[in-house]
Amino acid sequence: MTNRIRVGIVGYGNLGRGVELAIAQNPDMQLDAIFTRRDPATISSSTKAYSIEEAANFVNDIDVMILCGGSATDLPEQGPQFAKMFNVVDSFDTHARIPEYFDAVNGAAVESGKLAVISTGWDPGLFSMNRLLFESILPEGNGYTFWGKGVSQGHSDAIRRVAGVKHGVQYTIPVETAVQKVRNGENPEFTTREKHLRECYVVAEEGADQAKIRDEIVSMPNYFADYDTVVHFISEEELKQNHSAMPHGGLVLRSGKTGTDSTQIMEFGLKLDSNPEFTSSVLVAYARAAYKLYKEGQVGAKTVFDIPLGYLSPKSAAELRKELL
Amino acid sequence: MTNRIRVGIVGYGNLGRGVELAIAQNPDMQLDAIFTRRDPATISSSTKAYSIEEAANFVNDIDVMILCGGSATDLPEQGPQFAKMFNVVDSFDTHARIPEYFDAVNGAAVESGKLAVISTGWDPGLFSMNRLLFESILPEGNGYTFWGKGVSQGHSDAIRRVAGVKHGVQYTIPVETAVQKVRNGENPEFTTREKHLRECYVVAEEGADQAKIRDEIVSMPNYFADYDTVVHFISEEELKQNHSAMPHGGLVLRSGKTGTDSTQIMEFGLKLDSNPEFTSSVLVAYARAAYKLYKEGQVGAKTVFDIPLGYLSPKSAAELRKELL
Repeated sequence: MTNRIRVGIVGYGNLGRGVELAIAQNPDMQLDAIFTRRDPATISSSTKAYSIEEAANFVNDIDVMILCGGSATDLPEQGPQFAKMFNVVDSFDTHARIPEYFDAVNGAAVESGKLAVISTGWDPGLFSMNRLLFESILPEGNGYTFWGKGVSQGHSDAIRRVAGVKHGVQYTIPVETAVQKVRNGENPEFTTREKHLRECYVVAEEGADQAKIRDEIVSMPNYFADYDTVVHFISEEELKQNHSAMPHGGLVLRSGKTGTDSTQIMEFGLKLDSNPEFTSSVLVAYARAAYKLYKEGQVGAKTVFDIPLGYLSPKSAAELRKELL
Repeated sequence: MTNRIRVGIVGYGNLGRGVELAIAQNPDMQLDAIFTRRDPATISSSTKAYSIEEAANFVNDIDVMILCGGSATDLPEQGPQFAKMFNVVDSFDTHARIPEYFDAVNGAAVESGKLAVISTGWDPGLFSMNRLLFESILPEGNGYTFWGKGVSQGHSDAIRRVAGVKHGVQYTIPVETAVQKVRNGENPEFTTREKHLRECYVVAEEGADQAKIRDEIVSMPNYFADYDTVVHFISEEELKQNHSAMPHGGLVLRSGKTGTDSTQIMEFGLKLDSNPEFTSSVLVAYARAAYKLYKEGQVGAKTVFDIPLGYLSPKSAAELRKELL
């Protein structure tokens, strides 16, 4: 294949490794370089790794840079910085800070004449797209988002900060009867407790007071106090063996009324063995879109709301109409 | 509200009536005229009805014309004809003929400088969008579409052509165990019979041979022979009472693999009390998009693959980023 899209990765954690694997599934793209803040010699990949400071030397060699850093501290800095040099795609996921992040990245991309796609992935990302699609089609109705069953990094971190806890993993689980009520068109209103359960697998330090740990977890404000929380104490071996994967998923639903009191239910769902690998696959599809938009002369920051779905595919518009419409 | 989008309806059957009801749910739009091939005096609506021949007089008064005719004979003629005068939206659903229909409407719309959105609705339409989205994100995997439970007009018509049948309604029903296999990531291959059941409710003429009717239905090639088909004989009253609604729905699924052999399942589903009212709601959202695209100076035919989701909403891009991303 000629003229493959030349991709770079910034940040080589779970997400960066996922992007590397996803690019290998897309014959119209190639991974040319990995940029890291660590010593590049420590990166174990068949693709050459460079110090992040060297990225500026690659402005003519990389078509799209996929930013795989975290939303708390990496992306607020790297997003605008890389958009000054490259077309970029990221999965910035701090919902409340998206407007200011959009403005910062947009300013940089407009100035450089590059194209940036922010906040892809699945929430924000695919879930957001469905929230928008659903409410546009069914303006009279109620929308619902359920997360899980899946590992929440934030809640797992919270468990691990409790005194006496050595390791811990937290699963967010939708309440099945709540989902069923929505699917039945009952238009329920839920308390926080009625929508999700929290299940914790904890490895306690030797001699720690398990009752005290359990109590501290289930009563933790913001994280657990408003939920029904189950705490299981397990061995370190069991944790490693059964709880090292990063599954996740969830549902976006809308229950609306049309015309003569007809109930109309729309639903989008994901069931993911690997949350980071899936997010990476979304990033790679949007990297293709970023490249196509840039080639058309578009500049500035875009979100999943601004990009026609056809841009995600390697197929031509005529092929898509023939094969998929 | 100032500057509401002025909409016209062409064809006042189930779909046209659904569009009228959907516009009433969208405060940024107003219905200004209904155009019909029947005697306009027979149209029972609070909106004024006109003969379809009078439409040309409304070129300055209608922003978007929603074409609610059938795909077999109405739209192939009306699509290009109305795109010569108006921005148009339709739900042309003969999958195999979409490429030629697109070309005909596109030619007319490019010539007139108008914007046309063809083949909206849910299949083609929302289902197509998800097929495209899913395969773009998970290029290694298998896609599945299930229809139902819902009334198939084509199959109901086929029943009614059988000698001795007075009335009949046919439901297409997905095989639940087949759906479950896909959700489990088993990547099954299905025969036609394994994916859907067909259930028929038949009112026989008095004195007709029910065994003969049943036999003729279940062995009918293309329509029933390749399926497990159940035939129930019921009274005309029962048919009217229990089988006059037009429910439908279905599922689009993709089961893909990423990275280190992770199974990733994506699913989109609809459960609709009223198929025509839902299709109408999709048409109205795309009428808004057609108007916005036209105001930007875009011309020609578009499909759901070409239109950013943000165009479906009355909200601004900044509002959407803040509220829904």
